[in-house]
Formats: sequence, structure tokens, C-alpha cells
Amino acid sequence: MSEIKVSINMLNTNEEIHAENKKLFDEDGIFVINLMSSPGAGKTSILERLISKLKQNLNVAVIEGDIYTTKDAVRIEAKGVPVVQINTEGPCYLEGGMVREASLNFDLRETELIIIENVGCLVSPAEFEIGEDIKICVLSVTEGNDKPLKYPLMFEKSAAIILNKIDLMQFTDFKVEEFYKDIMQINPKAKIFQTSCTQNCGIDELSEWILKEVKKKK
Amino acid sequence: MSEIKVSINMLNTNEEIHAENKKLFDEDGIFVINLMSSPGAGKTSILERLISKLKQNLNVAVIEGDIYTTKDAVRIEAKGVPVVQINTEGPCYLEGGMVREASLNFDLRETELIIIENVGCLVSPAEFEIGEDIKICVLSVTEGNDKPLKYPLMFEKSAAIILNKIDLMQFTDFKVEEFYKDIMQINPKAKIFQTSCTQNCGIDELSEWILKEVKKKK
Repeated sequence: MSEIKVSINMLNTNEEIHAENKKLFDEDGIFVINLMSSPGAGKTSILERLISKLKQNLNVAVIEGDIYTTKDAVRIEAKGVPVVQINTEGPCYLEGGMVREASLNFDLRETELIIIENVGCLVSPAEFEIGEDIKICVLSVTEGNDKPLKYPLMFEKSAAIILNKIDLMQFTDFKVEEFYKDIMQINPKAKIFQTSCTQNCGIDELSEWILKEVKKKK
Repeated sequence: MSEIKVSINMLNTNEEIHAENKKLFDEDGIFVINLMSSPGAGKTSILERLISKLKQNLNVAVIEGDIYTTKDAVRIEAKGVPVVQINTEGPCYLEGGMVREASLNFDLRETELIIIENVGCLVSPAEFEIGEDIKICVLSVTEGNDKPLKYPLMFEKSAAIILNKIDLMQFTDFKVEEFYKDIMQINPKAKIFQTSCTQNCGIDELSEWILKEVKKKK
């Protein structure tokens, strides 16, 4: 695992770096996912299970974004795929320049899918394009069904929305019909997946959908 | 309920505005709490229960910070205390100028405690002092015990840390000993409360501690 401590690139605008990153990834036909959520919604747990599936068919690499620690990268490395840890040491989002620097640690010609696990925050990560083809966001039922309307940008920009920890639904007052209704209002085209990592449910469907998206690009 | 849509004050530094707010609140002997957490950790649910207790002994007013919607302010207003909603329409944190503007909607001479519910984010709200006497942060067990080390600033700066949703502990892999050990490392002076809003547990202790803190200032 490589580890990168970043300084923010002030020379190019983030839009320019996003376009450069996209060009870099497109040249090698790499599909890139920007995975976002609040802290603790379950991004890393989903990734652990997803990678076990996806690596049967694809060469996957992972960029882990955190403010501090390499805890998540250590978990993903155990799944047997290349991982780079970015520590922002402050900002609660990744920027394009950080992703560029991290991606140069991979053998890009041999890589088909890069999943970037963004820093845990339901707000700022959605404001920065970092070279991705699609955004996916995760909401766990324990956070409450009011979050899409309170934090709309991330839900609006995501191609897929993962409703996680559905095994805990019965212990919460999460209103799933209201959640679907609110997503229909904010982002009617979004694909919605329901998952539980402890019950290992919904991961197959999510994995198959990602595989199809990756193949569309090829 | 009043509602404020804000533009960020660029004329004074946040430190200056924090000091001015503090002076304003100190003049009337008002104790001010900055309540912070990730989205969905349970700030508003804790506040609903806390206010029912605290208002028996104190004149409480609440400032609600959200990016969009007045959902939380509506919930707090139902508890029968003055509330002002701030909608940041972008930023995931409150600034001193926003708090100043909001607080002028209260009768400050009649107010003894202002609780400011910050925007849901485990990172940026801890970076801005907004006129508070103390910070309190909430972590729900469903977020995982790894969060204090991954997002240390908020835990480091808080006088009290509330571990919420403890009724769900049995359904998660939250390691409570590791949580206490990590807090001891980051912020050994922090007072830790365990709460469950659905089981109405831990709120009495928290309420009594806040009452004592308010009285210390008088």
C-alpha cells in the first residue's frame, strides 16, 4: 500500500484537473467510480464485499481517501487488490490533484476499474469532480430518511444510491417509501440498491450493475 | 420560528466574530453550546429530549443549522422554545456571523442557554468557533468505533462526547472499550455520556451535567 500526504494544487482549477484525469483514465479505458457518504455509512464494508466479487472479472484498484489513518486501506489491501491511501490531513473531500498523484502508483494499462473511496462527509465531496465516470453514494438507514432533502447535492449527482444497513431498518424509524419518494424528486434516474454487509445481501446486484457500467465504456 | 439564509461575512475574521459573539453572550450571562456530529447521529433527537428536561430550570433558545430545509427547527419548535433556523445553502458548517445574526432574534436578556445545532458533518464544524462556551459532539454506535481516530479534531475539542443509539450496540460490531481508549488518547478530559433516544436513557445525566455547567458561568 502506498500512502500520500497531500498539498492542494493551486495552479490548475479543479475542472481542468478533472478533465486531465478523465483523459488519462479514458486513454487506458479505465472506468472510475467516486464512492461517497457520511462517515460510518458503510463505504469500506461495501467495498470489501464488492471487491471480492468484482475481482473475479476485472482488474480493480482502490484509492482510499481519509483525513488521517490508514485503517480503511489496510482493510481493502487484505482483499488482494492494489490500494493507495490519501490522507488529506484537514479537508473533508478529495480533489483532482490528489487522485492524479495516487493513480500514478497503479499500473494503469493493467487496470480496468478504479474505485475511489472519498472522505466521509455528506456535503463537500459532491462538490469536486475528481476524474470519475460516475458517483455512487451510500446512505445507511440509521442516518434517517430525511437526509436526501437535507443534503440534496450528493443524491442529485449520483448515478446510483446504496441504501445500506437494511438489516437494522426494523430497529429504526426509517421510512423507506419517503426515501424513494424523495429520491424520485431529487434524482429520478438514480439506480437504488438496498444492501446489508452483515447479512451479505444486495451486493450481487450492485456488483452486476457495476460490471455492466464498466463494459459500456469499453 | 425565524429563518435566515446567509451570506458569509468576509469583513471580519472568524476569530474576531467569535470574540464579539462571546462578549455579547457573556454580557447577559448566557451559556452557549455548539452541538456537532455527522448527519444522522441523533443531534435533533437528543435535543428534543434534552429541552424537555432543561426548560424546567432554564430559559433555553435553539439555533438550528442546516444546509437546506427547516425540518429540524420544526421538531424543536414543537418543544416550546424559541428557535431560529439558519440555512447555509452550501457550506457544511456554521460561521460566527451566521450565529450572531440568528441570536439577535432572541430576547437575550431573558435567555440563559443557547444550544446551536451545527450542520451535520464530522469535520468542518469543529474548525470554526462561533461564540460558544463549550462544544459537545455526538457519535452514534452505528457509525463505528474507528471514527475518533479518523476524525480527531471534533473529539479533541469537545468538552463532552455523547455516544448515542446505544440500544443498537448489540446489532453492530462497535467496540466500546476501544472507543473509550481512543478518546482517552485524544481528549482525556472529555466527559462521555451514553444515550439512547428511543429508550430515553442517559438524557437525565446529560441534562444534569449541562445544568451544572450553565450554573458555573453565572
